[in-house]
Amino acid sequence: MPIVAIIPEPNAPVEVREVAEPELEPNSALLEVEVSEVCGTDVYLQQGRLAGVPYPLVPGHVSVGRLQKIRGELFDVDGERFSEGDRVTFLDVHRTCNACWYCLVAKAGTRCPQRKVYGITYGLDDGLCGGWATHVYIKPGTRCIRLDAAPETFMAGGCALPTSLHAVERGDIKIGDTVLVLGSGPVGMNAVLLALMRGALRVLCIGAPQARLDAALHAGASATLNFETHDEAQRLNWVLENTGGRGADVVIEATGAPEAVVQAMRFTRDAGTVVVVGQYTDHGETSFNPHLDLNKKHLDVRGCWGSDFSHFYRATQIAAQRGEAWTQMKLISYGLNEANEALADVKEGRVLKALIRP
Amino acid sequence: MPIVAIIPEPNAPVEVREVAEPELEPNSALLEVEVSEVCGTDVYLQQGRLAGVPYPLVPGHVSVGRLQKIRGELFDVDGERFSEGDRVTFLDVHRTCNACWYCLVAKAGTRCPQRKVYGITYGLDDGLCGGWATHVYIKPGTRCIRLDAAPETFMAGGCALPTSLHAVERGDIKIGDTVLVLGSGPVGMNAVLLALMRGALRVLCIGAPQARLDAALHAGASATLNFETHDEAQRLNWVLENTGGRGADVVIEATGAPEAVVQAMRFTRDAGTVVVVGQYTDHGETSFNPHLDLNKKHLDVRGCWGSDFSHFYRATQIAAQRGEAWTQMKLISYGLNEANEALADVKEGRVLKALIRP
Amino acid sequence: MPIVAIIPEPNAPVEVREVAEPELEPNSALLEVEVSEVCGTDVYLQQGRLAGVPYPLVPGHVSVGRLQKIRGELFDVDGERFSEGDRVTFLDVHRTCNACWYCLVAKAGTRCPQRKVYGITYGLDDGLCGGWATHVYIKPGTRCIRLDAAPETFMAGGCALPTSLHAVERGDIKIGDTVLVLGSGPVGMNAVLLALMRGALRVLCIGAPQARLDAALHAGASATLNFETHDEAQRLNWVLENTGGRGADVVIEATGAPEAVVQAMRFTRDAGTVVVVGQYTDHGETSFNPHLDLNKKHLDVRGCWGSDFSHFYRATQIAAQRGEAWTQMKLISYGLNEANEALADVKEGRVLKALIRP
Amino acid sequence: MPIVAIIPEPNAPVEVREVAEPELEPNSALLEVEVSEVCGTDVYLQQGRLAGVPYPLVPGHVSVGRLQKIRGELFDVDGERFSEGDRVTFLDVHRTCNACWYCLVAKAGTRCPQRKVYGITYGLDDGLCGGWATHVYIKPGTRCIRLDAAPETFMAGGCALPTSLHAVERGDIKIGDTVLVLGSGPVGMNAVLLALMRGALRVLCIGAPQARLDAALHAGASATLNFETHDEAQRLNWVLENTGGRGADVVIEATGAPEAVVQAMRFTRDAGTVVVVGQYTDHGETSFNPHLDLNKKHLDVRGCWGSDFSHFYRATQIAAQRGEAWTQMKLISYGLNEANEALADVKEGRVLKALIRP
Repeated sequence: MPIVAIIPEPNAPVEVREVAEPELEPNSALLEVEVSEVCGTDVYLQQGRLAGVPYPLVPGHVSVGRLQKIRGELFDVDGERFSEGDRVTFLDVHRTCNACWYCLVAKAGTRCPQRKVYGITYGLDDGLCGGWATHVYIKPGTRCIRLDAAPETFMAGGCALPTSLHAVERGDIKIGDTVLVLGSGPVGMNAVLLALMRGALRVLCIGAPQARLDAALHAGASATLNFETHDEAQRLNWVLENTGGRGADVVIEATGAPEAVVQAMRFTRDAGTVVVVGQYTDHGETSFNPHLDLNKKHLDVRGCWGSDFSHFYRATQIAAQRGEAWTQMKLISYGLNEANEALADVKEGRVLKALIRP
Repeated sequence: MPIVAIIPEPNAPVEVREVAEPELEPNSALLEVEVSEVCGTDVYLQQGRLAGVPYPLVPGHVSVGRLQKIRGELFDVDGERFSEGDRVTFLDVHRTCNACWYCLVAKAGTRCPQRKVYGITYGLDDGLCGGWATHVYIKPGTRCIRLDAAPETFMAGGCALPTSLHAVERGDIKIGDTVLVLGSGPVGMNAVLLALMRGALRVLCIGAPQARLDAALHAGASATLNFETHDEAQRLNWVLENTGGRGADVVIEATGAPEAVVQAMRFTRDAGTVVVVGQYTDHGETSFNPHLDLNKKHLDVRGCWGSDFSHFYRATQIAAQRGEAWTQMKLISYGLNEANEALADVKEGRVLKALIRP
Repeated sequence: MPIVAIIPEPNAPVEVREVAEPELEPNSALLEVEVSEVCGTDVYLQQGRLAGVPYPLVPGHVSVGRLQKIRGELFDVDGERFSEGDRVTFLDVHRTCNACWYCLVAKAGTRCPQRKVYGITYGLDDGLCGGWATHVYIKPGTRCIRLDAAPETFMAGGCALPTSLHAVERGDIKIGDTVLVLGSGPVGMNAVLLALMRGALRVLCIGAPQARLDAALHAGASATLNFETHDEAQRLNWVLENTGGRGADVVIEATGAPEAVVQAMRFTRDAGTVVVVGQYTDHGETSFNPHLDLNKKHLDVRGCWGSDFSHFYRATQIAAQRGEAWTQMKLISYGLNEANEALADVKEGRVLKALIRP
Repeated sequence: MPIVAIIPEPNAPVEVREVAEPELEPNSALLEVEVSEVCGTDVYLQQGRLAGVPYPLVPGHVSVGRLQKIRGELFDVDGERFSEGDRVTFLDVHRTCNACWYCLVAKAGTRCPQRKVYGITYGLDDGLCGGWATHVYIKPGTRCIRLDAAPETFMAGGCALPTSLHAVERGDIKIGDTVLVLGSGPVGMNAVLLALMRGALRVLCIGAPQARLDAALHAGASATLNFETHDEAQRLNWVLENTGGRGADVVIEATGAPEAVVQAMRFTRDAGTVVVVGQYTDHGETSFNPHLDLNKKHLDVRGCWGSDFSHFYRATQIAAQRGEAWTQMKLISYGLNEANEALADVKEGRVLKALIRP
C-alpha cells in the first residue's frame, strides 16, 4: 500500500500514513517516486499561509520517479508513448484548460482559473497527488516528460528551475548585461545560473546566509553582498559601485520580502527591467514613490506568476545537457518520516535544497 | 525687440519683459511664435516643484511658429532644407547626445543625462528658450519639423500628444483590447484618442470634472466615471462591470496622484499592462501589496518618461492626416500678459487646453 | 434530413445531397446554418489543389447559425453555458491538441500537426463538417462564440477577417506607419481596414479589378494602383512616390502570386516588415536576390499561417463593436443549389464576397 | 611618416606607401595601430565587388592601437576622457547622423544613408582611414572604446564578433533552443560561440573545410557537417536527424551563397527564425517556393545589416570578461608588406583569422 507524508491541517506536524492504491482511470498511471523536494512553498503550506489549499494535503509538487503502472496510453510531447518503467517527471500544474479567455485570448496560461497544482491545490481528497509519498497518481491529462538527466541533477533545480527560467525569460536579458539577483534561496541561485547561461556578463547577488553567497560565487556570480550586515543604503551603494554608477540592467527579485520589490526598482538602472518572482505569499504592503522609483526611471516592472509546460520542459533539457552547475549544488535527503525535520531545516535556511526520498 | 513672459523665481507671478534679440550661431534660427501652450508642467514650474530648473525662466516647451531668420542651413529629417517663412514646430528636447551609454548602448534616449528641454531646463540665461514669447531662438541641433496641420490642431494635442503616444506605444495595446485611462487632463484625453486609433474596441476613462468626461465620451470613450463622486471600491466595481469581471487589458495612468498607480494595478486584468505616465512630479509615496497587486497578477508595470523625436514627428503626422478629433477639442487662448490668468485656469482645471498667443 | 452541397472529387461539380442526421456525442451540438461563405480556398478545393483533403467534402469553413440541439454542455470562453437557440459562429480549426511540442513548447498552435479544419481537412466521412449545408455537426471540443454582430457583418469579413488580423498582428504596425497591401481580394480588403484600425496613417493598395480598388478607397485607403495596367517597375515607382522615396513601412502580401512576395520586399523600406499571407497554395517558385532584397535592406519577412482562437474571437468583437466598414462591403448570396455558380463567380473575381444561404 | 598598405584600384595588388601625417582637427586623434585584420570584405574590396568604394583605399576596418596624439578632448560613453597612450578600438562606422528619418523615426541606424565606414567607404582621399597602416586618423565624432581585453582576444573576433552579435540578437534565441549556423568562416564561428552564450543547448554547424568544423566542435558545437561532401538533401536529413525531425529553432545564415538562404528556410522548424547575415555582397539571385518555404512554415526571415555601437561595445565587454573561447582561436599575423599573401590566404580559406601587424 502507498505511504504518504501528510499535513493534516495548518500548523499541525506532518504525519506518515498508509493509503489505498488508487484505481487507475483510462490514460492515467501510477508513479513510483524516487525523489521529491521540500521548497519554501511547503513551509508556507504547513503554516497555513496559502489561500485555497485543501487540507489534509500531501506536499511535494515537483518529483521524479518511474511509471509503475499505466492504464491506456500516455504520450510525451513528441508523440512517443510511455512504457512502464520509464523514468519521468511531470508538470505539477494540471488542468490548464485551453478553453477559457485567459488560455485562448490572453494566452496567459499561468493565470487560467481552472489550473490545479499537485501537492498544493490538490489535497488528499483528490487522490495521491503529492510527491512526499511512495507513489503519485498521474491523473489523465498530466504532462509527463522523459527525464534524461540524473534525478539529482534535475531536482537540484527542482521547482525553482522552471520558476527562475520564467523569470529570466521575463527579464529580457541581453548579452552583456549586468544582472542583479535579490535573494539566494533556490529561486535566487537558479536565477544566477540561468542569467549567466543567458549571456549576462556580470551577475550580482544580494542574499544570506554567507554559505549561500559563497555557493553563488562558486556558481559564477561576480560579486555578492550579505543583506543581514548591510542596510538598504549600503546595498544601493554597493550596487552602484558594481555597475558604473548606473544600477543593474535587470534585477530579479526572489526574496519574499515586500520591501525588496521597491529596493529592486532602486537598484535598477534607468530604463531597465525588474522581475518580481519572490512574492508568492502575502506578506503585506510596502511603500514606494511612483515618480522617483518608476515613472522617472522609465522602468519595466514585471510580475512573474508560475510557470508553464515550456519552462518545465526546457528545465529538463538544461539538466540533461548543461547540468554541470546543478550537480554541484548541495542536496540533503530526508526519508518520509523525517519530513518535519526537513521542513524545519528549510525554514531556518540550514539547507539550500532538501529532497524527500520515500 | 522680442518680448517674453517670465517666471522670475518659484512662486512669483509671471512678468512680461523685452529682451535683446539673440545673435544667431551658425545653423541656428529665430522662430516667430504663433502659438505656444500652458500645460500642467508650467503650473509646477511656477510653484517651484521641479528639480533642476534654472530661474528666471520663459515657459512654453511646445510651440508653433515661422522661421523668421535662418543663419546657415537647417534640414528636416528627409534632408530638405528649411527656408525663412516656413511654418514649423520643434522637438522641445535638445542635446540628446548620441554619445553616452544611455543613448548608444541602452538606447534609452529619454534618459540621456545631457538632454535639455526648452521652457523647462533651459532658463533665460540660456537664451530665448521658451515659447511664451514673440520669438524663440532655435539653437543649432534643434530638430525642427515642417507642420502641415493647422497650428490649432497640432496644439490641441500639444505636449500631451507625443507623451500619450509614447505611453500608448509602451502599453502594447492589441486590436480588440479594452483600455482604461485614469485621468482626463490633456494626457488622458490624448490617450483616449490614441488608444482608439490603436485598435482598442473599448476605452474607459475615470477622471473629472464632468465636462472633461463628456468630452472623452464625445471623443469615442465607451464609458466614463467621475472619481470625485466614486471611491476606490466603487471605481473597481465599475471597471469590473465594464470588463466582464476581469479588469482592463491595458491601463494608462495619467493623473499625477501616487495612489492612482496602485489603483491602476488593481483595475488591470491578470497578465495585463499598466503604463505610468502621470507621475512627472514628486507627490510622495504610496503603498501597495507586491504579492496581490503585482506578482500574483503577472502584471507588466511600465514607467514612461518623456518622448523622443519619433513620437513628436508622428504627432505632427497624426495632426496633419487624422486630426479631426483634435480640431474638436476646446482651446482657450491667452496673450502674453494674460499668462498668470492662463496658469490659474489650468491649475484649477477650468480649461482643458490653454494656448498662449504672443 | 440535413442537406449538404458536396464536392465529390477534385474537378467535379458540386452536388446537393440529403444525408442522415448525426447522432450527437456527449458535449456536442447540431448547428442550423444561417450563412456560410465561399472563399478562394473553396475554389482551390474544387480544383484539387490542396494537399491532404479527403473527398467527398462539404466546403464552408466559417459559418454562422443557431444551436438547434445540444447534448451535454457547451461553454463559451467566459464560462457561460450555451443554450439551444443561441446564435454562434465557431472556430473552423478543431483539435489543436495542446499536448504536442508545437502547442506547448514552441507555442505555435497554428502549426500543430493534429489540427483539423471544418470544410477543408474534415471530409464527409468525418460527419457533417462543412457550412454549405443546412446543418453542421459541432463536434466535442469545437470552440463556439456567441455572435453579437449581425451575421452579414461578421460574414462580410468571413474567414478573411481573422486571417488578416493575424497578418496585421504579425506586421507590427506602428501608429503613423504607411502600410502597403498587395492584393484586393477578401484578405487584402480586410487588411486595409485593419491596418487603418491599427493606426496606420496611410494605407496603399495594389490590386485589381478596379471595382475592388474603388471599394478599398471607399474603405479608407489613401491611394490604389491597378496591377493589371502597371508593370513591376511602374508599381515600384508608384510606391516610392507615395512613401517619400523610401518604400512602405509594412507590406502585407495577400495575392497568391509567388512573384508578389519578392515585389513586397522591394516595395518595403529598409528595416521594414513584410508579411506573407497570400501563399496558401503551391503556385511554384520565384527568384530573388538575397543581398539586395533582404540582407542589405535589413528586412523582416514573416510568413503567416492560419489563425487561432484569439484572432477569431477578436474578429467577432470587431464585427460587433466597430463593424460599420464591414456592413458596407458588397455581399452576394447563393442557395445550396447555386454553389457551382458561386464558385465560378469567386474564381473569376466577379464578386468580392459570396455567401451561401442554405 | 605613416606607412599604409593600399589597394590602388580594383584587382590591383596591395602596395605599401608612405603618406604624410595628417593635421589633427579639434577633438580628433592619431592612433598608432597595434593590430588590424583581414576579413572577407577585404577580399571583395580587392576584387572590386563592393559598390560605392573610393579607390585608392587603405583596408582594415576593425583595429586596435594606442592613442598617440589627441587634439582637444575625446570621451568614452561613460564620459571619461581619453589620454594619450590609452589602448582603444573604435567603431568602424562613422557619421551615423542621428538627424535623418532612418536614425530618428525608424531607429534603424545601420541603414542611415550618411554612414561611412573606415577601411571600406572611406578611401585614401578621406585621410588615414584604414587599419592596414602604422597609423589611423581618428576623425572627430569617431566612437572610441577603451579596450580591457588583450588585443589578440578581441581581434580573434574582429569585425565578425559585433556582426554575429547583431545576428544572434536578431535571432531571438531562447534558452534551450537548437541553433543551426550555416557557414564556418569568422561570422559563423562567432555565431556558434554567441549562440551558446545566449543559452542554446545545441548548436549545429554546416561548413567547410574540416579544420574549421573541428574548431567549431572544440568551441562547443554539438555536431557539424561538411557541406563539400554532402548535398542539400543530405544536409536536410542531417538537420532533421539532429532536431527530432523538426528542423532547427533558429538558423543563422553566414555563408555568402544565395542558395544557402533558401536552405536556411528549409532547415528551420515551422514557426522558427532565420537570420540572413551572410549576404554582404551581390552574388546574384536564387529561387524559392513562397508557399512551402515561408508562408506555410510561418517563418520569420530577418535580414541583418551592419552593426551599431551597442554591438561593438558589447563585443569588447565579451572579449574582456568571457574571452576564453576567443583566446583559443588560431590567428596568423602578417606584416604590412605581406598583405597580398594575407588576402590570398583568407580568400582560399587557408586561415580562419588573419591579422595585420604593421
